[in-house]
Amino acid sequence: MADRTFAGEFELIARYFAPLAAKTPGALGLTDDAGLISPAPGCELVATTDTVIAGVHFGPDDPPDLVARKALRVNLSDLAAKGAEPRLYLVALSLAPAITEAWVAAFADGLRADQDEFGIGLLGGDTTATPGPLAVTITALGETPAGQAIRRSGARPGDDVYVSGTIGDAALGLGVIQGRYPGLADEVADRLRRRYLVPEPRVALGLALRGLAHAAADVSDGLPADLGHIAAASGVAVVIDTARMPLSPPAEAIAAGDPSAVISALIGGDDYEIAFTASPRDARRIGKAAASAGVRITSIGRVEAGKGVTVLGSDGEPLALPVSGYRHF
Amino acid sequence: MADRTFAGEFELIARYFAPLAAKTPGALGLTDDAGLISPAPGCELVATTDTVIAGVHFGPDDPPDLVARKALRVNLSDLAAKGAEPRLYLVALSLAPAITEAWVAAFADGLRADQDEFGIGLLGGDTTATPGPLAVTITALGETPAGQAIRRSGARPGDDVYVSGTIGDAALGLGVIQGRYPGLADEVADRLRRRYLVPEPRVALGLALRGLAHAAADVSDGLPADLGHIAAASGVAVVIDTARMPLSPPAEAIAAGDPSAVISALIGGDDYEIAFTASPRDARRIGKAAASAGVRITSIGRVEAGKGVTVLGSDGEPLALPVSGYRHF
Repeated sequence: MADRTFAGEFELIARYFAPLAAKTPGALGLTDDAGLISPAPGCELVATTDTVIAGVHFGPDDPPDLVARKALRVNLSDLAAKGAEPRLYLVALSLAPAITEAWVAAFADGLRADQDEFGIGLLGGDTTATPGPLAVTITALGETPAGQAIRRSGARPGDDVYVSGTIGDAALGLGVIQGRYPGLADEVADRLRRRYLVPEPRVALGLALRGLAHAAADVSDGLPADLGHIAAASGVAVVIDTARMPLSPPAEAIAAGDPSAVISALIGGDDYEIAFTASPRDARRIGKAAASAGVRITSIGRVEAGKGVTVLGSDGEPLALPVSGYRHF
Repeated sequence: MADRTFAGEFELIARYFAPLAAKTPGALGLTDDAGLISPAPGCELVATTDTVIAGVHFGPDDPPDLVARKALRVNLSDLAAKGAEPRLYLVALSLAPAITEAWVAAFADGLRADQDEFGIGLLGGDTTATPGPLAVTITALGETPAGQAIRRSGARPGDDVYVSGTIGDAALGLGVIQGRYPGLADEVADRLRRRYLVPEPRVALGLALRGLAHAAADVSDGLPADLGHIAAASGVAVVIDTARMPLSPPAEAIAAGDPSAVISALIGGDDYEIAFTASPRDARRIGKAAASAGVRITSIGRVEAGKGVTVLGSDGEPLALPVSGYRHF
């Protein structure tokens, strides 16, 4: 693509990505075929990969630094839910024809900001040109002491079910971006939009829940769907109560005017909170762990024998939810 | 995308990808947020990621099992060049609208075949729908004893320069696919095409070169370009001799009719051979290592003080090469 207006592949890597790897042990300045990882003795590595695509997972005109941060954070959220400490990431970037060098520079700035925020380093990557939409695939690697990763499969009947933060803001934020909820104050609209654009992976909470949570998952497909993954992996049933669902003040305000918005928010996904289960005997320790992590948690239900997820409405009767969570196709 | 004719994301994973992870320790049946890796004591992990895109890195109508194998093998080739033993991989698959379930099934068959061939296991992944061309990003993880990965940066003046296998077949194979060289016998054309479609990562050779090769890189961008990466990372110059270039009999035959084809082949890339340097004192051990790996190697030049790569033509004079290697943009 000789008519591209910016530097070639190697120049892009040298200018914008090698500086992100300068302090990463084993990244070899991004000048080698691969990166090297020296695992700490007695540790287990936790690995996850996620792709985000323009027009599917983010808007084609979203600020590039926020695209970078979202691409990274959806992966860090997976690590957080496993109780892993994020360490390293690899980024595979497929550049659409319209992408400019300024876009790449701003994208790298976003990665830099989150490297600093989460204490992680770039280990390697790949840069290609695509005739399709811009796509970013990030593979993130974290660390836990061996055997201490929190899995989806450990929920037991009798466990309490918790979720961190508030649920539905990202889905409502997407609604704001799509022009729904025109009556919102600018500040409120901004806050919701931000929740959609830049998720907040609950890393500190995940670390604090090691040895306490029986099972955990990050809330990306929608709370009932993600609890469904825990239920299926653990061979149990989960019952949650919409009346106990933690909503932000803006979500409360929208819900007051439009009760169906609560359900949309509940199943909308993209929350990147942690849903987890733990023994009622550990309720006090769980509360302390969350407080130490500076994250609000809410008990929203209970694990029972059986299978599937039941969501109780405000009248205490099970809701028939329209879909079981976000599906990519 | 409700009009898709096949199963949803979770069904696709359960049907075609979870079976590939069934024997992978730590993959948790692909039912969790992330995969777990328990590094062997004293080992170093080697990580690489590469994206292949329909219409860019492979033909939109290429057989899906070969697409899978190429996507995997370009990564295994990076591990091989570092002397790493391949262990695990994650696959992020972006499905274009026209992709059918049969395509995905055949793609998974290709992964299965190479898992068996290379003794690796699927650790995790992501499946998304894209409005653009099909894309596959694979992240591969290998293992070496700590400190034994072969880097690009260790070449020293006086080293011999070697390359494995033969050079140029893949570039000629792409030419065959594009309708050049119409006079070739079917068998010859098939062989060249195959070299383009399914690279042969030199894993056994990479393992045998640990402790012997001073520097190594896989040949993907084109031999002069990849030797240029070694020269730059090592702070040395590399001089190679086209007269010593290992060509396959089909490449020899094409070169006999069209000398410019040799140059195109030399710089064409996609060879996925290993280029490496080693002390002349170790020439005998290098020969034994290659023999033990069952791979032909050829001494093609020498490392000198200085910088850059010089390619000598058949008259012993430096060639002015038209480009310095394949660039994605």
